[in-house]
Amino acid sequence: MSDDKMEIPVSYSKLQELEDDFEEVEVELLRHQAKLTGDLYEKRAKVIAEIPNFWPLVLEQSPSDIDEYIQPTDSAVLLNSLTDLSVDRFELASGGDPRSISITFTFSENEYFSDKTLEKKFWWRCAKDGWAGLVSEPVKINWKSKDKDLTQGMLDLVCQLRAAEQAAGKKLDDDAEPKKSLIAQMESSGGIGGVSFFAWFGFCGRNISAEESKEAFKEEQAKRQKRKAGEEVPEDDEDEDDDDDDDEYETEIFPTADDVAVCIAEDVWPNAIKYFITAMEQDALSDIDFEESDEEMEEADGEEHASKKRKA
Amino acid sequence: MSDDKMEIPVSYSKLQELEDDFEEVEVELLRHQAKLTGDLYEKRAKVIAEIPNFWPLVLEQSPSDIDEYIQPTDSAVLLNSLTDLSVDRFELASGGDPRSISITFTFSENEYFSDKTLEKKFWWRCAKDGWAGLVSEPVKINWKSKDKDLTQGMLDLVCQLRAAEQAAGKKLDDDAEPKKSLIAQMESSGGIGGVSFFAWFGFCGRNISAEESKEAFKEEQAKRQKRKAGEEVPEDDEDEDDDDDDDEYETEIFPTADDVAVCIAEDVWPNAIKYFITAMEQDALSDIDFEESDEEMEEADGEEHASKKRKA
Repeated sequence: MSDDKMEIPVSYSKLQELEDDFEEVEVELLRHQAKLTGDLYEKRAKVIAEIPNFWPLVLEQSPSDIDEYIQPTDSAVLLNSLTDLSVDRFELASGGDPRSISITFTFSENEYFSDKTLEKKFWWRCAKDGWAGLVSEPVKINWKSKDKDLTQGMLDLVCQLRAAEQAAGKKLDDDAEPKKSLIAQMESSGGIGGVSFFAWFGFCGRNISAEESKEAFKEEQAKRQKRKAGEEVPEDDEDEDDDDDDDEYETEIFPTADDVAVCIAEDVWPNAIKYFITAMEQDALSDIDFEESDEEMEEADGEEHASKKRKA
Repeated sequence: MSDDKMEIPVSYSKLQELEDDFEEVEVELLRHQAKLTGDLYEKRAKVIAEIPNFWPLVLEQSPSDIDEYIQPTDSAVLLNSLTDLSVDRFELASGGDPRSISITFTFSENEYFSDKTLEKKFWWRCAKDGWAGLVSEPVKINWKSKDKDLTQGMLDLVCQLRAAEQAAGKKLDDDAEPKKSLIAQMESSGGIGGVSFFAWFGFCGRNISAEESKEAFKEEQAKRQKRKAGEEVPEDDEDEDDDDDDDEYETEIFPTADDVAVCIAEDVWPNAIKYFITAMEQDALSDIDFEESDEEMEEADGEEHASKKRKA
């Protein structure tokens, strides 16, 4: 394959070594950030608990990376019943990876599902082929009836498939139930465009156990030591698991759920007050009677600058 | 205007106090990050100096926030002559604000301009009306001839206007030269769509002197102290400077230059190696002969996962 690559006078190892160093700093900064912001997030939680519709308004202002997945029905459900949202880097306390994220949604009584909270956990895992990223487990939602199921049964099928595969200790064949139904359902639902945001709770990602990840991490650290010592380290052999990977994407009802989780944790969560203030300002602007005095118009201008500051 | 706002049971002061606290942490984290990454960026600079076209390839892979401003001609100029790019948080060393950014482009001999380096500085400044953000000075580019000027004379006019206004110590009237020509030129160039990326060097932003910023910062700190002490602080009166602001946007040939600078500093610069590796992988993928063995196809799959990791 190296024949197909651009010829560059620097080895892949050299670039990878730099990336490894940057990654270590990034993780260190996440730890430091958590230390500095912990009390602030607690203080914030108390203040925003008093504001009705805080989180639905924040989500409405959220970047398109998230907003594009919120269908009109989802939006109505969230606006009427989302009472709290919280992000936790849950492995930090035990000295684990700060990139593992749990996101908890709290709901009031609603006509769609009976769950009071839905928590989705994403674990930062390493694979022996050199991959690293977030993996998760599907979260069951207790829909009040079949026609209230915003995922049209897909989330249930994912949960069943996961349970069946864990019981069997291996992947199911494509024509075994519930996999067959799930694939058929996914094909008929016609692409991500119309899939409910609640399908996000069904994301699995690669199937990597904590043990496998631990071993892979150790191997990776050993490689890094070698690179630092100037030894040539062979590129990761990424072939072996390809078949598995294909399977995993085939039954993934929300393939970009990990990116959405990172966006919630790194943008929506830290910038929630900024988004909320923007929502309030837009509300104020839309309420202004444009036949009123110029003065009032100028105030609106001023607000635009204020929001610019908060986005900076 | 408070009548126009959504009624919320939490005071604006309370939310602003939280935002102030988060902002302080953010600045502290930028300082810490600079400390942890300084040596790494030096090490990286040495490695990538050996790779031809490193920065043009990185810019080609850069997020749409930047890519959308790079016109085909710009792209050709960058690919043929951009030899280095560097980002410096230049006020840090003297204990200043880590949000002030300087971005330096280094070029080889080319047919468009004679400058070897173009440095654009953005200062983090506070205004008395409560605004805070990045301001800059226009950077002259020495075009080799009139028809090589990628901004069709607009950048020169901005530089002249800035000099004239600084000499006069006040804003020029709209019908005074060179302002009149600049506005006419901007109107005829028909929107941002076709404007060269090099117009980015013309951004000014709000006209706030270092002294004004210092005073405004002191006032802001005093307000924060009051908020923390539980005293009610009036909302910033953002009316007074509105007229000025309007003027400033009127002659801004690249109004989002500050956002682009932040994107370069916070995304392109730290993730440069990731973008470069993606560029190499795309090159490898496009070179694969699809009639070759399945094995080779699977290797390409593996690469997709590798790039996912690096983006995580």
